Amino acid sequence: MPEQNAEHLQRPHVPALDRILGQAFPVLDDGFVRVIDYMGDDRAVVQAARVSYGEGTRKVSDDRGLIRYLLRHRHTTPFEMCELKLHVRVPMDAWRQWIRHRTASVNETSTRYSIAIDAAQRTAPGQWRRQASANRQGSEGSLDHTVGEELSRQEEDLQGLARDVYLGRLDRGVAREQARKDLPLCTYTEAYWKCDLHNLLHFLALRMDAHAQLEIRDYARIIGEEIVACWVPVVWEAFSDYRLGALSLSRLDRQVLGALGRGDHPSALARAEEAGWLRRSDRTGKLLRNRERAELETTAAELGLTPPWLADASDAAGA
Amino acid sequence: MPEQNAEHLQRPHVPALDRILGQAFPVLDDGFVRVIDYMGDDRAVVQAARVSYGEGTRKVSDDRGLIRYLLRHRHTTPFEMCELKLHVRVPMDAWRQWIRHRTASVNETSTRYSIAIDAAQRTAPGQWRRQASANRQGSEGSLDHTVGEELSRQEEDLQGLARDVYLGRLDRGVAREQARKDLPLCTYTEAYWKCDLHNLLHFLALRMDAHAQLEIRDYARIIGEEIVACWVPVVWEAFSDYRLGALSLSRLDRQVLGALGRGDHPSALARAEEAGWLRRSDRTGKLLRNRERAELETTAAELGLTPPWLADASDAAGA
Amino acid sequence: MPEQNAEHLQRPHVPALDRILGQAFPVLDDGFVRVIDYMGDDRAVVQAARVSYGEGTRKVSDDRGLIRYLLRHRHTTPFEMCELKLHVRVPMDAWRQWIRHRTASVNETSTRYSIAIDAAQRTAPGQWRRQASANRQGSEGSLDHTVGEELSRQEEDLQGLARDVYLGRLDRGVAREQARKDLPLCTYTEAYWKCDLHNLLHFLALRMDAHAQLEIRDYARIIGEEIVACWVPVVWEAFSDYRLGALSLSRLDRQVLGALGRGDHPSALARAEEAGWLRRSDRTGKLLRNRERAELETTAAELGLTPPWLADASDAAGA
Amino acid sequence: MPEQNAEHLQRPHVPALDRILGQAFPVLDDGFVRVIDYMGDDRAVVQAARVSYGEGTRKVSDDRGLIRYLLRHRHTTPFEMCELKLHVRVPMDAWRQWIRHRTASVNETSTRYSIAIDAAQRTAPGQWRRQASANRQGSEGSLDHTVGEELSRQEEDLQGLARDVYLGRLDRGVAREQARKDLPLCTYTEAYWKCDLHNLLHFLALRMDAHAQLEIRDYARIIGEEIVACWVPVVWEAFSDYRLGALSLSRLDRQVLGALGRGDHPSALARAEEAGWLRRSDRTGKLLRNRERAELETTAAELGLTPPWLADASDAAGA
Repeated sequence: MPEQNAEHLQRPHVPALDRILGQAFPVLDDGFVRVIDYMGDDRAVVQAARVSYGEGTRKVSDDRGLIRYLLRHRHTTPFEMCELKLHVRVPMDAWRQWIRHRTASVNETSTRYSIAIDAAQRTAPGQWRRQASANRQGSEGSLDHTVGEELSRQEEDLQGLARDVYLGRLDRGVAREQARKDLPLCTYTEAYWKCDLHNLLHFLALRMDAHAQLEIRDYARIIGEEIVACWVPVVWEAFSDYRLGALSLSRLDRQVLGALGRGDHPSALARAEEAGWLRRSDRTGKLLRNRERAELETTAAELGLTPPWLADASDAAGA
Repeated sequence: MPEQNAEHLQRPHVPALDRILGQAFPVLDDGFVRVIDYMGDDRAVVQAARVSYGEGTRKVSDDRGLIRYLLRHRHTTPFEMCELKLHVRVPMDAWRQWIRHRTASVNETSTRYSIAIDAAQRTAPGQWRRQASANRQGSEGSLDHTVGEELSRQEEDLQGLARDVYLGRLDRGVAREQARKDLPLCTYTEAYWKCDLHNLLHFLALRMDAHAQLEIRDYARIIGEEIVACWVPVVWEAFSDYRLGALSLSRLDRQVLGALGRGDHPSALARAEEAGWLRRSDRTGKLLRNRERAELETTAAELGLTPPWLADASDAAGA
Repeated sequence: MPEQNAEHLQRPHVPALDRILGQAFPVLDDGFVRVIDYMGDDRAVVQAARVSYGEGTRKVSDDRGLIRYLLRHRHTTPFEMCELKLHVRVPMDAWRQWIRHRTASVNETSTRYSIAIDAAQRTAPGQWRRQASANRQGSEGSLDHTVGEELSRQEEDLQGLARDVYLGRLDRGVAREQARKDLPLCTYTEAYWKCDLHNLLHFLALRMDAHAQLEIRDYARIIGEEIVACWVPVVWEAFSDYRLGALSLSRLDRQVLGALGRGDHPSALARAEEAGWLRRSDRTGKLLRNRERAELETTAAELGLTPPWLADASDAAGA
Repeated sequence: MPEQNAEHLQRPHVPALDRILGQAFPVLDDGFVRVIDYMGDDRAVVQAARVSYGEGTRKVSDDRGLIRYLLRHRHTTPFEMCELKLHVRVPMDAWRQWIRHRTASVNETSTRYSIAIDAAQRTAPGQWRRQASANRQGSEGSLDHTVGEELSRQEEDLQGLARDVYLGRLDRGVAREQARKDLPLCTYTEAYWKCDLHNLLHFLALRMDAHAQLEIRDYARIIGEEIVACWVPVVWEAFSDYRLGALSLSRLDRQVLGALGRGDHPSALARAEEAGWLRRSDRTGKLLRNRERAELETTAAELGLTPPWLADASDAAGA
């Protein structure tokens, strides 16, 4: 056991993180993230892994190698041995997404006890995003500035009115728990949020992803790049290499790409056919849209491979 | 092991619950709760407990006795063996409280993918509640009807405007994930919510409590009295006796009440004094407000006991 | 928000705990518990609660009062804001009970990777405990010393043989993961175990209880009295008063005790009768054994009350 | 919402699973797995997903396509909507690994309450496995049959003696909780184990893996291939394609393979060099062993690509 003979321990601490303790990193127009406390560091991950895997691990790997091995092979428990406590200020509609991560501890400001924070998220004229056409849940590009100006003016009016109604209700003696009911979803809230490093990385993998909503992505990026990178730099590097930058190939992907790689186009075609990737429109004769095939084509391109069904330019355009 | 020799099992089912499967129980002005599916019944709790505690438990207790014993002694794992899946429609501000119960599975309608439900919780003129004076987070009584009428009219206007702004944004091409940001907190949402019986009872104990907000209390009451009572009637009866109707005495409570019961007033006074319950105002000489002492006095009254410090009527009034 | 304006924070630390960091508290014949790291202190509980409950809480309560209030009313989330990481050495059969607490992080020595620890729990001649007669799962008193000497000798032989077989298998080239299969259940293992304060208190409430097995109770007592008491003394005091020393009265208990307290014996009898507590043997006419009634009688005695059915001495003896 | 208008629901049921309900699938020499109950089916996953993602999902995908999409993109919550309850009989040392999966509900036979099951896992002469040389935690091949016969005889003697000692202690009046302490780690235990489908798939992904210990792999294989495949066949097919058969490429893998695919050998070499994959022995000049590079080489081979550093046959052999 590491340290077993040590008569006395010092708590691990990370000077680079100590320097930013309590400092508010601004996010969005009026939000922030601050580190309140933490437990452990890169070395604490290694120490816990060595308890599990014993002395043998010491010979083959240095600390960095072990951390990278653990992350690459999706080991989880050693990363649970580190803990981070944040104080955050977030619009409630982004917080709704945040709070869905269940393996965390939370104390949020209660608008039953206290008057709601007097701030709702404001959108600048250039920040109104268009509905994405391909991705039903996403956004892409931004609206014309003139339209944006009108929308921002309207937003200000609505938020002002909602606040007035709220305060008016309180003045009349309405209970806080009821008065708040018509405040905007994007009203700011504050919370202490505490999470272990394994679950934090999972949160970041999902919320730094391009499919996450821009607002929560801004928080995730700050937590990842400004805080975690500074707290556990070796874990962060491994996470960037093996999770953020990773690509998963399915059994089908492997079969098709393998055949392409070996130059065995008939097998690649047969496998894709079997998988239902090559159905064609009765009307136009073109390949129908197929999300799984489209993803495979992107991967193939990355590996310098061309699926045979793309040889025909008109089909490629249709994909 | 029970059933070990059984060559074939039937899934447990509860005819009384089967009859209401899929039926929407209305809650609030436009919400509901429906049972979608369930696993287990009273007997499944017993069966799981007998796996743990073995044959010995069979001799001493019938099923009802065993369930009551388990609940009285706060055993938990046998109750995790039953599972309930609900479809609920809830205002988002009540849902925020609901979702804080982390040991449950949830699929909620996404307002990134779909247009938000066109309904927000409406308050009838007689339903505007006053801020409680003693309890910072609660409400008590209701506002004057004339005031209520004005507040309800104003609520309708604000909700209508918020909806118009939302739809207007969508018309302009704003992404759904952004357009929703100023909808009222009480906009309805829908979700599938699945929870095991142990965690469901914990949810009910907290949310049926008089301190819970009225809105979520309405949901909890329906789930408890209309659904759980019908699904696992023996568990429900035991839960009502041992959890809903229970009272916890602290070490101090026991020492003071024990002394009172034995007629040993000096000891009761001494213990209360030590605990800091009997501090008096420098100015008036009256006992200062003390929440713990007040709770003890209520319990004492229930047991027909009178603490000596209440012998003086003026103090009693002050307490 | 507390500290919001603070430009810089210091991590909370507890000098009394820092002094024992890394120090092994011996448990059983060859086990130990050591603190490896911790997050938070009494003040961190208060700080998190104030985020939730806002400024209002500041007026009415000092820190100690707030902590006591939170624990008395079973608030949980503020206690999750503190975290403790231990290094423990425990016999595997006690560890089996320990690991059932799911809300904790664990890295245990793997006997697939490493050779099993060369130690199994030994029992001194005076430590062999008798099977309890009333409590099917417990023990009471100890066996005769002469018998104990024989049992201890036999234990030594068996453990020696099991170890020899294990080492012999390894010598023959058997995989470690298979060779270990016949080691005694009480073979020592080591682990890092990390848990938040709320879940730790729950662990202690269950495992310091007189019904817990002596071995794990020894660990729980050391963790509670030597470590938690030193780390968060105010929480520990409140926990001792409101959880360890608490007594829960059921709805029925309250009804019966209330009637007794008011001197209303007929109501007390009627309620007990209804509850099925007063069934009598057809043969002897004496009250049948009833666990719930027996528990009520103990509570009544503590409060100086005598149930009417105990007035008859022969029944009292039968109870 | 699907079914919202339905006045009445039927619980989903799966005839193929109903037929094997309660049937014990034998595992190892004396273990088994039996389905006790279940909630949901393939359709329940789809139904929950449609609550989240709304009507839009209905247009683009049939049920099978949606399930495959959800699994491919690691969506988790819809799979939590199905639940499986098993009755298992497992050697305690395999159960120790099983129980590490924390998101499940368990009732295990208590050897404090009841006499321990009179069976420990027996090893046939041909089943003694050799310690793996490359993998510190694994096994490979089996021992010579003559050696195996001797080991099996010795195992029988040791298990017999441990049982005699156990029964002798009980005869002397030793408490069950203490008497059991020297039983073999591979003594059988029984439990009810309940888990949702998402967490069950995670369990299977880890425990069906070639790195899992053979004993628990046998249980996982039965649960997967005999039970889950029969219960939710579409989910099982997708899981087999996207998880069991999947391969994850790290950022580095992608960079090196991409360069190889484009025929850009200098970039591939440079990237591998930078990553530290091409360090050579000072003595022999050969490439040093590097686990990450070895994994990349396997993937490259599968894709028909040859890393430039393998062009030299002697290095290839050394890898």
